[in-house]
Amino acid sequence: MRDVAVIGVGITKFGELWDVSFREMIIEAGARAIEDAKIDGKQLDAMYVGNMSSGQFIRQEHTGALIADHAGLVPIPSTRVEGACASGGLALRQAVITVASGIHDFVVAAGIEKMTDVLSGVAMGALATAADQEWEVYVGATFPGLYALMARRHMYEFGTTEEQMAMVAVKNHQNACFNPCAQYHMKVTVDAVLNSPPVTLPLKLLDCSPITDGAACVILAPAEKARKFNDTPILITGTGQASDSISLHSRPSLTSLRATTEAAKAAYKMAGVGPDDIDLAEVHDCFTIAELMAIEDLGFCKKGEGGKVTQEGETAIGGRIPINTSGGLKGKGHPVGATGIAQAVEIVQQLRGEAGKRQVDGAEIGLAHNVGGSGGTAVVHVFKRGD
Amino acid sequence: MRDVAVIGVGITKFGELWDVSFREMIIEAGARAIEDAKIDGKQLDAMYVGNMSSGQFIRQEHTGALIADHAGLVPIPSTRVEGACASGGLALRQAVITVASGIHDFVVAAGIEKMTDVLSGVAMGALATAADQEWEVYVGATFPGLYALMARRHMYEFGTTEEQMAMVAVKNHQNACFNPCAQYHMKVTVDAVLNSPPVTLPLKLLDCSPITDGAACVILAPAEKARKFNDTPILITGTGQASDSISLHSRPSLTSLRATTEAAKAAYKMAGVGPDDIDLAEVHDCFTIAELMAIEDLGFCKKGEGGKVTQEGETAIGGRIPINTSGGLKGKGHPVGATGIAQAVEIVQQLRGEAGKRQVDGAEIGLAHNVGGSGGTAVVHVFKRGD
Repeated sequence: MRDVAVIGVGITKFGELWDVSFREMIIEAGARAIEDAKIDGKQLDAMYVGNMSSGQFIRQEHTGALIADHAGLVPIPSTRVEGACASGGLALRQAVITVASGIHDFVVAAGIEKMTDVLSGVAMGALATAADQEWEVYVGATFPGLYALMARRHMYEFGTTEEQMAMVAVKNHQNACFNPCAQYHMKVTVDAVLNSPPVTLPLKLLDCSPITDGAACVILAPAEKARKFNDTPILITGTGQASDSISLHSRPSLTSLRATTEAAKAAYKMAGVGPDDIDLAEVHDCFTIAELMAIEDLGFCKKGEGGKVTQEGETAIGGRIPINTSGGLKGKGHPVGATGIAQAVEIVQQLRGEAGKRQVDGAEIGLAHNVGGSGGTAVVHVFKRGD
Repeated sequence: MRDVAVIGVGITKFGELWDVSFREMIIEAGARAIEDAKIDGKQLDAMYVGNMSSGQFIRQEHTGALIADHAGLVPIPSTRVEGACASGGLALRQAVITVASGIHDFVVAAGIEKMTDVLSGVAMGALATAADQEWEVYVGATFPGLYALMARRHMYEFGTTEEQMAMVAVKNHQNACFNPCAQYHMKVTVDAVLNSPPVTLPLKLLDCSPITDGAACVILAPAEKARKFNDTPILITGTGQASDSISLHSRPSLTSLRATTEAAKAAYKMAGVGPDDIDLAEVHDCFTIAELMAIEDLGFCKKGEGGKVTQEGETAIGGRIPINTSGGLKGKGHPVGATGIAQAVEIVQQLRGEAGKRQVDGAEIGLAHNVGGSGGTAVVHVFKRGD
């Protein structure tokens, strides 16, 4: 397998983009990535598009070809991949495998979701199709409900508090204030989170990531060709993906995602690193409890101590292991198919030293962690600044 | 890149399977493929699932993980890929690339669609999301309508007749009678096709492929390990994929699919063969006109002569280049996400000499051609019997 590098990244503003269509969003992100890579669009060989549910959100499947066409890239192969909210991460992984295989050189991994053009009930219904319809959704489960079960169990097993969960939101909203593309530029306090309207207790409104429109792109190249385009190519040294039951009740534990631990194991092994080598990470904080579980499952702290290390500031910018410097799903927004690619954009910008006021000093190795549903799919990538 | 071989295939009965659920279908196809490959399921490393629109058909996205779980394969990576009716072919291509890359050895490519559990109007609406919603569907285009435009133009440019199109249906229904998994075991005559109810003229009911439930699986392995499992491994020597505008009106020609010609060019080049080397092919006959265009675009006859060579029996079993020996989408049925994998199953069975009454004598090289929408995506694979 060939080594793979990122040579360009691009991202749209995340938010309620009522004046921008699905196809306009991807062009915006793609054009920025092409400009960033200083590559001619004609050199691009293939594209993967992470997109969860355009069939339900905008009544449009076949978005791989749609996007290739609208970007002026036909006849290159363009393939949509889907794994619920992990769709972006899966698109990145397919692009990595494709470049590594040698079949194509310059491959785009794009992620996109247009979620706010439908009523919120329709959006919630579409998102619920990431859970097990027959065994969960038909009997009334919602995503906040599933994550609330995990939160309650985490509180019971480890003494995690609602205040500690709230601190995830406080930190990520703080980070988002320094991210121009974030949906929210609005600080929140622990009290504000605790007093926000209940969604599914113990999760309140400000424990939940929002409904968001947005798109992001990265352009990959074989590492040996990367420096022609970019003085600071970022290598993708590890990729890992794993599956689990998409129904929560089928799993032995409610406080750990097996898909995350298995995907991380594979990615760490391929990259030849461990959690202690990681300088910063973007993790899948669809709910505040999810970030606590993620940093435990990824090995950044012991199981059950996610709340404690968050409270002690270890995951803040300047702390031991900064988490979600972009603002995360919570503060930056969560256009589900775009999220995995947006995480990659943040890690690349950090490792290049281009993250502005949210820069982690001296970051050399970063990790992105993207989850589908309540943990049926997880995908982990390890990034390293090229020498 | 490593050479890739098929070591096992499995398929369900195609049809209106009201007594079998989505997850039951894939288990049936998968178990048969595992039995055929004589492999232990624990050896499988990864899975790709071709599935067009489960979100709309059964209100379930995230079907990669769902299927891995239900098949007892977690925690292996399992990824859904979508390119409308080419979803199965795209899943096969991703599996080929993944094995070729060296990241995984034993990879399942599955295809599935459950289409008959909804009202036919809902099914037609879901299928229409493969076309361009903003530019085609909202103004009234349907798939039969789009293909009818192609048929009219083909008749105008080349003198193709409705009788010649009908002969595609006659041949494919005849072939389907010898295929135990086919939806229809029912011969039709040219008169029956011509007198069947109009759908969008010149296309009548019997020019159109049906709505179908079904699933299919193939198991791939590195060629050097394939013979441990199977005395007759079938090599996949070429894979090609291309994109085009998903809206028909954006293209310079209505009588040729650029995605097909480009995908074929790539697949032929990789395999080191040309159309004259192909002994039989499964092509994407979603409508009878589509088969005529496909055999022209794939180079099996000159442009415009698809009707003529069909009329002269060149595409029948025993003819110069047998097309759709399985019965094709027309006779075997068209569960959209499964079709690309089902085509691969047929080619493998033919090259092994296991196709029973529909066997093409001495077949050594076969081709599968899978199209998404009205030609926004096409994917072509070349298969060769191992020595």
